[in-house]
Amino acid sequence: MGVMKGVIAQINSALTVIDLTHQIPPQNVAAGRFCLLNAYPYFPVETVHIAVVDPGVGSSRRAIAVKFAAGFLVGPDNGLFSGVLSQSPAQAVVELTNPNYWRTPQPSTTFHGRDIFAAVGAYLASGVPLEQVGQAIEPTSLVQLSFPEYSLTDTSVLGHIQYVDYFGNLITNIPGTLVQGKSWLIEVGEFRILGEQTYSDRLIGNLIALVGSHGWIEIGVNRGNAQSQLHLSEGDTVQVILDSAVSR
Amino acid sequence: MGVMKGVIAQINSALTVIDLTHQIPPQNVAAGRFCLLNAYPYFPVETVHIAVVDPGVGSSRRAIAVKFAAGFLVGPDNGLFSGVLSQSPAQAVVELTNPNYWRTPQPSTTFHGRDIFAAVGAYLASGVPLEQVGQAIEPTSLVQLSFPEYSLTDTSVLGHIQYVDYFGNLITNIPGTLVQGKSWLIEVGEFRILGEQTYSDRLIGNLIALVGSHGWIEIGVNRGNAQSQLHLSEGDTVQVILDSAVSR
Amino acid sequence: MGVMKGVIAQINSALTVIDLTHQIPPQNVAAGRFCLLNAYPYFPVETVHIAVVDPGVGSSRRAIAVKFAAGFLVGPDNGLFSGVLSQSPAQAVVELTNPNYWRTPQPSTTFHGRDIFAAVGAYLASGVPLEQVGQAIEPTSLVQLSFPEYSLTDTSVLGHIQYVDYFGNLITNIPGTLVQGKSWLIEVGEFRILGEQTYSDRLIGNLIALVGSHGWIEIGVNRGNAQSQLHLSEGDTVQVILDSAVSR
Repeated sequence: MGVMKGVIAQINSALTVIDLTHQIPPQNVAAGRFCLLNAYPYFPVETVHIAVVDPGVGSSRRAIAVKFAAGFLVGPDNGLFSGVLSQSPAQAVVELTNPNYWRTPQPSTTFHGRDIFAAVGAYLASGVPLEQVGQAIEPTSLVQLSFPEYSLTDTSVLGHIQYVDYFGNLITNIPGTLVQGKSWLIEVGEFRILGEQTYSDRLIGNLIALVGSHGWIEIGVNRGNAQSQLHLSEGDTVQVILDSAVSR
Repeated sequence: MGVMKGVIAQINSALTVIDLTHQIPPQNVAAGRFCLLNAYPYFPVETVHIAVVDPGVGSSRRAIAVKFAAGFLVGPDNGLFSGVLSQSPAQAVVELTNPNYWRTPQPSTTFHGRDIFAAVGAYLASGVPLEQVGQAIEPTSLVQLSFPEYSLTDTSVLGHIQYVDYFGNLITNIPGTLVQGKSWLIEVGEFRILGEQTYSDRLIGNLIALVGSHGWIEIGVNRGNAQSQLHLSEGDTVQVILDSAVSR
Repeated sequence: MGVMKGVIAQINSALTVIDLTHQIPPQNVAAGRFCLLNAYPYFPVETVHIAVVDPGVGSSRRAIAVKFAAGFLVGPDNGLFSGVLSQSPAQAVVELTNPNYWRTPQPSTTFHGRDIFAAVGAYLASGVPLEQVGQAIEPTSLVQLSFPEYSLTDTSVLGHIQYVDYFGNLITNIPGTLVQGKSWLIEVGEFRILGEQTYSDRLIGNLIALVGSHGWIEIGVNRGNAQSQLHLSEGDTVQVILDSAVSR
């Protein structure tokens, strides 16, 4: 990461660089997709988002840059951007085929973050037009990250845990809009957890379900760690029971 | 953290943002208080310190901004600033009641760092006057973090461990000024540890007591980890024996 | 680290500060040496590299600043810079004896990073000439970090692991240039690991040997962790078998 910032500074030392996160578990594209999806609306328009969770580096996976309403995305074509682009569609996509905008014409086979993505990102942020850094490709050809969708009945939603955050909160793939104005609870294993407004609605150490700051339904523990208490992790199933079905 | 910096850049991209630390254990207000207390003197005057260790987010705990001699403090009113303010008193305090300076008039109930503190901090750093971001409140009404004080006799000081740092050093609440120019040792459990000037005064692997760079008496191990060696943690008791009482 | 950036901002708030890494294990000068060695070429010329892995702080170890082709190095004279300087020799070295360029004339005995190195680095980056911050000393007098060299025969190279990275990759002290254009494998314990071009050349979970992005031969696991799989660490021996000796 530090080296990538050095490369950016070599190209244009006037650029402002912000670290989004260094806490993506190694090779976990789904976690990277989730963090980017929830972060991009909070950055200035025209921001260039460089993202490197890149287990396929050195293979035939494509290196891409994407123009979308909120700026640019630069990184591997492995689904990392599929969350962002499901909310704000790609306006143009190029494959990064022009070595003039790489750090070196002979990039390492294991660290495109340094040799391609940081350099291309710095040039885009400096005003180089997207079409110069590579060859246009079809937005529809981008890799999608297959992720189970939630399923909805009149009285419940079946979903999955899509991310576990720094505090051990379990974040589902169920949007909070589905429970807005309703009473609800979560069933997970033997537990029934009432939906609340915020952590301090529950006694310290108690499980709580709420709509997180990212807009997804999450399970937490007031001043505790839900992951270690429930032994759940990414992909595990949770069920939200809605409204009249809830007997408090 | 990355998202908070995005919010700041959306408001004023010319501001310089410095990360103080990301190593505060979740919900540990006392650790946050300690780090802020020891760090603030090293930042430029007029710095806006945004601090978010906020287990009570979404409850009735107040959101505040404080003007003091070295700049501003922005965060929850939960005692996080009580260390700084014990050294450099509040000159003015407001409760953050003006949603015009929040990121959104409907902030998340779980992440005021993003929706209130980052935004208000960015406005203050951009020159918005304190009285515009909220309603004046009495400095004396701020929450104090209750922390045991050390107690002093002619020949000893009884104190507590107030923080364990990245290296496993155990930092007490006993100011180094109490041992200045004296010979001294620490008694903790069955151990007697001589007070020295610096780590390399002791053989590698040996326990050492000294006045740390923050001015507090601390226990460390030369090139080792005192916490794992002594099995002590925050709140545990230590005793400093002064001067003539020391038989080396 | 945050405090060091505060000190830099107090001296010159217009400087750009880039974090190289915070993942050096405590007191591990060899790991710091390795990271600096591999990072410095990616930073702008005239960068001031401040490095603080400093187990001897407060002892008689010297504090130094070095001018070399790519900029400046500031930190303890304990071998931390010996990797960089083996590739790009020192042009001038001073011992940091001029307290006018320290943060305080009475620096802490345990945190020269804050009280000496950050301050001197900020002054050098602001244009203060090297000869003002201290007294010239001989480049040849600098502490070298003794590190075993690799040894070479016609058909093999015997080397050691010099660093374990964030992903658990085991990085040897054998330069990739020795295997360029050859077929090769690594023997370590009972394992024979074929040399490849990149991680995705191997099935997920399989061991792989390749030339890493830093130019050294490394052992990894495709989407896995070689350190936990092989139970090897810094200093352990590995052997590279070259060319005709390899029966695939």
